[in-house]
Amino acid sequence: MTGQLIDFRSDTVTRPDAIMRAAMAEAEVDDNVIGTDPTIAELERRAAQTLGMPAALWTPSGTMANLIALSVHLQRGDRFLATRGAHVLTNELGSAAWLAGGMPDILEHDAGPGRCLPETLEAAIGNPGPYFTLRTTLLCLENTHNAAGGAVTPPDEHAQLLSVAKQSGLTVHLDGARIWHAAVALQVPPAALTVGVDTVSACFSKGLGAPVGSVVAGSVEFVERARRMRQMLGGGVRQGGVLAAACLVALDRVDELAETHEFAKRLADGLSEHGWDVRTPDTNIVLAGVPDVPTALNWLGSLGIQALPMAGKVRFVTHRDLSSADIAEALRRIKTGV
Amino acid sequence: MTGQLIDFRSDTVTRPDAIMRAAMAEAEVDDNVIGTDPTIAELERRAAQTLGMPAALWTPSGTMANLIALSVHLQRGDRFLATRGAHVLTNELGSAAWLAGGMPDILEHDAGPGRCLPETLEAAIGNPGPYFTLRTTLLCLENTHNAAGGAVTPPDEHAQLLSVAKQSGLTVHLDGARIWHAAVALQVPPAALTVGVDTVSACFSKGLGAPVGSVVAGSVEFVERARRMRQMLGGGVRQGGVLAAACLVALDRVDELAETHEFAKRLADGLSEHGWDVRTPDTNIVLAGVPDVPTALNWLGSLGIQALPMAGKVRFVTHRDLSSADIAEALRRIKTGV
Amino acid sequence: MTGQLIDFRSDTVTRPDAIMRAAMAEAEVDDNVIGTDPTIAELERRAAQTLGMPAALWTPSGTMANLIALSVHLQRGDRFLATRGAHVLTNELGSAAWLAGGMPDILEHDAGPGRCLPETLEAAIGNPGPYFTLRTTLLCLENTHNAAGGAVTPPDEHAQLLSVAKQSGLTVHLDGARIWHAAVALQVPPAALTVGVDTVSACFSKGLGAPVGSVVAGSVEFVERARRMRQMLGGGVRQGGVLAAACLVALDRVDELAETHEFAKRLADGLSEHGWDVRTPDTNIVLAGVPDVPTALNWLGSLGIQALPMAGKVRFVTHRDLSSADIAEALRRIKTGV
Amino acid sequence: MTGQLIDFRSDTVTRPDAIMRAAMAEAEVDDNVIGTDPTIAELERRAAQTLGMPAALWTPSGTMANLIALSVHLQRGDRFLATRGAHVLTNELGSAAWLAGGMPDILEHDAGPGRCLPETLEAAIGNPGPYFTLRTTLLCLENTHNAAGGAVTPPDEHAQLLSVAKQSGLTVHLDGARIWHAAVALQVPPAALTVGVDTVSACFSKGLGAPVGSVVAGSVEFVERARRMRQMLGGGVRQGGVLAAACLVALDRVDELAETHEFAKRLADGLSEHGWDVRTPDTNIVLAGVPDVPTALNWLGSLGIQALPMAGKVRFVTHRDLSSADIAEALRRIKTGV
Repeated sequence: MTGQLIDFRSDTVTRPDAIMRAAMAEAEVDDNVIGTDPTIAELERRAAQTLGMPAALWTPSGTMANLIALSVHLQRGDRFLATRGAHVLTNELGSAAWLAGGMPDILEHDAGPGRCLPETLEAAIGNPGPYFTLRTTLLCLENTHNAAGGAVTPPDEHAQLLSVAKQSGLTVHLDGARIWHAAVALQVPPAALTVGVDTVSACFSKGLGAPVGSVVAGSVEFVERARRMRQMLGGGVRQGGVLAAACLVALDRVDELAETHEFAKRLADGLSEHGWDVRTPDTNIVLAGVPDVPTALNWLGSLGIQALPMAGKVRFVTHRDLSSADIAEALRRIKTGV
Repeated sequence: MTGQLIDFRSDTVTRPDAIMRAAMAEAEVDDNVIGTDPTIAELERRAAQTLGMPAALWTPSGTMANLIALSVHLQRGDRFLATRGAHVLTNELGSAAWLAGGMPDILEHDAGPGRCLPETLEAAIGNPGPYFTLRTTLLCLENTHNAAGGAVTPPDEHAQLLSVAKQSGLTVHLDGARIWHAAVALQVPPAALTVGVDTVSACFSKGLGAPVGSVVAGSVEFVERARRMRQMLGGGVRQGGVLAAACLVALDRVDELAETHEFAKRLADGLSEHGWDVRTPDTNIVLAGVPDVPTALNWLGSLGIQALPMAGKVRFVTHRDLSSADIAEALRRIKTGV
Repeated sequence: MTGQLIDFRSDTVTRPDAIMRAAMAEAEVDDNVIGTDPTIAELERRAAQTLGMPAALWTPSGTMANLIALSVHLQRGDRFLATRGAHVLTNELGSAAWLAGGMPDILEHDAGPGRCLPETLEAAIGNPGPYFTLRTTLLCLENTHNAAGGAVTPPDEHAQLLSVAKQSGLTVHLDGARIWHAAVALQVPPAALTVGVDTVSACFSKGLGAPVGSVVAGSVEFVERARRMRQMLGGGVRQGGVLAAACLVALDRVDELAETHEFAKRLADGLSEHGWDVRTPDTNIVLAGVPDVPTALNWLGSLGIQALPMAGKVRFVTHRDLSSADIAEALRRIKTGV
Repeated sequence: MTGQLIDFRSDTVTRPDAIMRAAMAEAEVDDNVIGTDPTIAELERRAAQTLGMPAALWTPSGTMANLIALSVHLQRGDRFLATRGAHVLTNELGSAAWLAGGMPDILEHDAGPGRCLPETLEAAIGNPGPYFTLRTTLLCLENTHNAAGGAVTPPDEHAQLLSVAKQSGLTVHLDGARIWHAAVALQVPPAALTVGVDTVSACFSKGLGAPVGSVVAGSVEFVERARRMRQMLGGGVRQGGVLAAACLVALDRVDELAETHEFAKRLADGLSEHGWDVRTPDTNIVLAGVPDVPTALNWLGSLGIQALPMAGKVRFVTHRDLSSADIAEALRRIKTGV
């Protein structure tokens, strides 16, 4: 059935193409634990620059990138704030709590999908209490917001939230696993979306084709502490340049994401015509409200269409390993039921 | 100014009276780490019986009682559910997350103060996901619910929530720090409120006058594991019988709590007449909505009335060390402003 | 059989006498979580002074006192050093590792029981390594040293170890559960044994008769952080003054420990005559090398003599609830076998 | 100076050669988080078979492989045993303690380098104590033993230790980062060295040229739990087949390690002639006792010879990216001092 399957499970399924594999095969490498792998170093330099941060650190996954940032930022007795459904809350097996050590509080999406109002944030922060109370020390933003259907928070809204956070002395971490998508959708450079944040994570394996690799970026001092935490977690690798080479190719392809956003809009329109409850997507994720999620997923599966459940809906993710024809074919199958 | 202060800060301020102190002075004691203190053993036996549980364990605080229960119940990668403002979420410095190891999710109070609808719970539990997702394994109830103003959940509602939890295989812990208050308000025995729960904590220092002491109760096997966890946390004490003796006196005084509930109703009526936004209290906690909390607390302080902020309101707690005259005097000061 | 049993299990078995119980019954108390209990405050003031430290914090156990100190001092990736058999290594259920977060390394007793040579310490500290290596940041001393048979480290040896530790930038915590015994044996004030240490713990329930209570002492800033950690662990109690009153009485009785050291010497002599391998005790703990520990403990039990195993030997602890006649009677039973 | 440097820092510095890079470039891949990467699956199957275990799991590092195993095996309150200088004790930033949750105890090398006597192990395990004591639940072996200079433990000695461990109900984890070296040196299949162990880790980046990758192997149920823990730590990667392809090539090259052992023997002889204190190496690691380690490392550096400090000595590691001529040249420089 290979070739017939249309894979909307995630943009993490994108495979390295020939160009990327060639770059990996030619990568200059060295031991990046006891020394420095030159290709990892080059990626870290370029990623930091692109993200507008002083320094960056390669990690084997976005989950580890976020975990490292939260572990550096949080102390026991700290409370952190994140929007409902944020990846650090729901998709990282609780490591923000049990390992990084923070007690989360949830911000509802009252300013739009994936976004909360500044006054909601302000109320959630509250006033500092006596010694026997939690200290609210960290705001964790996510842009684009996965569980909200790849929703984008524009820079001005970001700025308002940061302003509130900073007035209360909070550190701000941005989960930018798909920050490239947000930048493309908003037609701004990625660095425009990190203004004022303390740390940001970003992934090269989500929609960009790199097989393995993320970064977490922040101050030079942060990256020093992050490097140590990466080693503790077992994320320090040796000749990782073979992977970083792929990430460098991915970094050059950010603009190509625009096409996958077009795919998503077309898919959303078709699903809407089919009668499913779909919001016009900001980027490459389409959430479809259906009468019953497991039934819908089974039915899609019987049509050779792969998708996953998310936030009580069916999630379709478009990506570079799909073609315009694949979108059309998927919609045809859904309309005709065969 | 002593004697004039009227202390509504908490029911934890109640002091042991002469009878209780005499019981402490006469308590039979032994080393409760390497052996068994007979008075602690007697308290544990009686508390278990009163709570309708197979066994109980003394702890130096309610915070530790809850922490032990959650540490025994939760594994890394587990998600637990609690109502917004629950003590384990907001008043225990995040130990449910960083030490017990759970990632919390918050249930809104959509069935009334401190209570959520069974369908809300069901939706929050969701369906079990693949290996890389959180497992929802624990429901944490709180009765009475402190941050909801001492609100009571009646047994039938409890039963509905437990039914949902059990159908999904969840463990249920009841934070019963003030379960005595709930039982008195509902005119049922405390054991009626623990039907079906796996573990329950209860405090003797909240409104009952005991200086120090709580219990956590559950199966015999649970208590064995809890004893070990208590020792790890440094909660194993030697001749603790001097404290357990006070708790035994407290246990005999549960019915006297009814008077403090009367105090609270009278106080609520008076505050309402004063123009503050007050719900008729179920038990001994009055939450007053005021224009500005710090201003109101300062003004009360200037009148010799002590209260604390909670959940964006002013919290008044009535207790056995207050008299009917104290309530009248407090309302007089508030009305006259002197 | 009560009255016939002679209890050498530990000096933690000492019970509060009438004077101590009277002090407890009369103690002035207040809520020590949301406010300050005056008797706890008085104990903390006097304990700090006696220990020669700026500030002190009451805790419900010595285990918690050590755990708090180590939790404040240690970060993930830190290595700490302690002598083989130290209480923090072997008697606190690993909380120094899993909760305080340190990786221990063990110093052998090459300078005498419970003591290591300065050069051994220096070699164990080693040189600072690159980012991917453990950082040695804490030395944990114990005086008297329980597993070494209540062995005393004199101030000059202490000073040499501290000098080595400080040259390498290590923090030093002194587990002084039985520091009173060391001071009495050396005929110096307890403060002479804390010169240069950053923090020290001390117990009032080991040989002094107080039912419950320890302190951890250090800088004012340390105590502030310790107070927060105590609350996290569930060690914050309300009207704890009833316990602190007993600790204050205990503090006045430190000099009386000398008699229990005499008891220990007499016991050691008798056990030695009996053919067991016994070192003359420094304080109140006698370790007896016997052919088979379980057999010896059973035999002692059959004679109504209670003791516990420790470090591969039989441990006898003398204390204030034993009399001169008890020692004589125990030796008589051992000699005659009845 | 490139080309002249002779790199003995570690066998982790080996780079993928053309054949390995070609395998990587051609690897079939898929998303290994939400699905299964076929090349990772193939590696896990072959590694399990070679190691004689039911199942295996790929990890990005040996540190993570060990961390996962210990996290699955250990509970809070558990004590584990490892030989002095074991990688899990000294080279993994304490994660065995603070994350996996175990309190270590150290076994001295009294049966030879890296090895302890069965009776030493038996004494260290001791007898089970009451509830308030540590439980000894895990033995962690290491073969070859890095800090002991790549020392090999033969199968019969292994069997004796396992027999003692199993009699006391201990789980046994084997840190087999360099198990391939032990097998080659002993001329036995790797599976002969895992008989009776519960879990084993092994690395493909130590001397075999693979850029990134290890495995941890055990029962099918263990691997299921390990997969979840890997995800928690951020070690779940997407198209990891590009790395697994290199590991598969490495697995075919195990026999070639014999040559690097020859290199080590030649180097050891030369260093011995030079007057340094060197034991004939079992495998590819040479530890040289020198008057002053930093001075020696600096002098070697000035000769273009790279080495690292370990266990108070200078460590030289031979590997496949060195040639016979490199060994001769290094010794020439050391003898002539230029």
